[in-house]
Amino acid sequence: MPTMHIELFSGRTKEQKRELVAALTRETCRVLGCEPASVDILLTDVERENWATGGKLWSEA
Amino acid sequence: MPTMHIELFSGRTKEQKRELVAALTRETCRVLGCEPASVDILLTDVERENWATGGKLWSEA
Amino acid sequence: MPTMHIELFSGRTKEQKRELVAALTRETCRVLGCEPASVDILLTDVERENWATGGKLWSEA
Amino acid sequence: MPTMHIELFSGRTKEQKRELVAALTRETCRVLGCEPASVDILLTDVERENWATGGKLWSEA
Amino acid sequence: MPTMHIELFSGRTKEQKRELVAALTRETCRVLGCEPASVDILLTDVERENWATGGKLWSEA
Amino acid sequence: MPTMHIELFSGRTKEQKRELVAALTRETCRVLGCEPASVDILLTDVERENWATGGKLWSEA
Repeated sequence: MPTMHIELFSGRTKEQKRELVAALTRETCRVLGCEPASVDILLTDVERENWATGGKLWSEA
Repeated sequence: MPTMHIELFSGRTKEQKRELVAALTRETCRVLGCEPASVDILLTDVERENWATGGKLWSEA
Repeated sequence: MPTMHIELFSGRTKEQKRELVAALTRETCRVLGCEPASVDILLTDVERENWATGGKLWSEA
Repeated sequence: MPTMHIELFSGRTKEQKRELVAALTRETCRVLGCEPASVDILLTDVERENWATGGKLWSEA
Repeated sequence: MPTMHIELFSGRTKEQKRELVAALTRETCRVLGCEPASVDILLTDVERENWATGGKLWSEA
Repeated sequence: MPTMHIELFSGRTKEQKRELVAALTRETCRVLGCEPASVDILLTDVERENWATGGKLWSEA
């Protein structure tokens, strides 16, 4: 029952999301030996003004 | 101090959210013997294009 | 497909966990009109030395 | 590699966010002895209708 | 800067974890066009008594 | 009501945790103008075999 949460910058296309979840599910099942139906993936689009690295928002970089 | 995060598909009404948090808080306090004021619940509305099961986005299902 | 994450202090019995997930699933399905099989709940036992309120660890309270 | 997720009510200004991530990164590095570049902070703006305490949504308070 | 959190049942070998993070990072970079160094993955081992589906703990299934 | 989740490598002392939550709460209240009692911080100790960057577990680095 693997469950994945993925945070990524906003702006990815629907096509990229579609391909990403397909690939991650396939690889997870290959390595862990689980059924695709048992894999849930939740994507979170994060705005650059809400993500900081090194104490600095990416919107300011 | 139970803290709950609930991810659910977008589209629930405010009335459903109101009833949901009241019911979950009541049941949690009944089972765990805690004070209602100690229960925090955070709801996250998830778009179907951001949730995949079996390698497929729900927006494509 | 509601997914819940619940953080609670360590020390709950298996019986309390069993009753808690049953009650929360039942209430969620009643309010949202979803199938029980679509509800996932993940519990996280948190040690008092890993939870702070008001700037103070609960293990120090 | 500390990673922080901070949930806060919507409505904070970009200036507050900028100051918050700078201060939290500085203090984390001071206490843990890590490099600023290793600190990631993700902010989540939460609407009052999605946060409940004591079984009541903050939008209803 | 994609960050992934993966919850999976306890009991996976270190070899499976090694292979899993390598594969997921490779696929993520291929689809999103990002640098491997920008991908962080955090695994959480979940005991069956802490995961419920359909209102029932997996330890009871 | 800011709530923080902080993931950090296992091995921090109780004294570091105590100082960390005090400092982060103080700075958060200073910047956001909130009451200390409204700040919750949850720390998660992560083993190096459960954290990967660039497709490689830190336990293998």
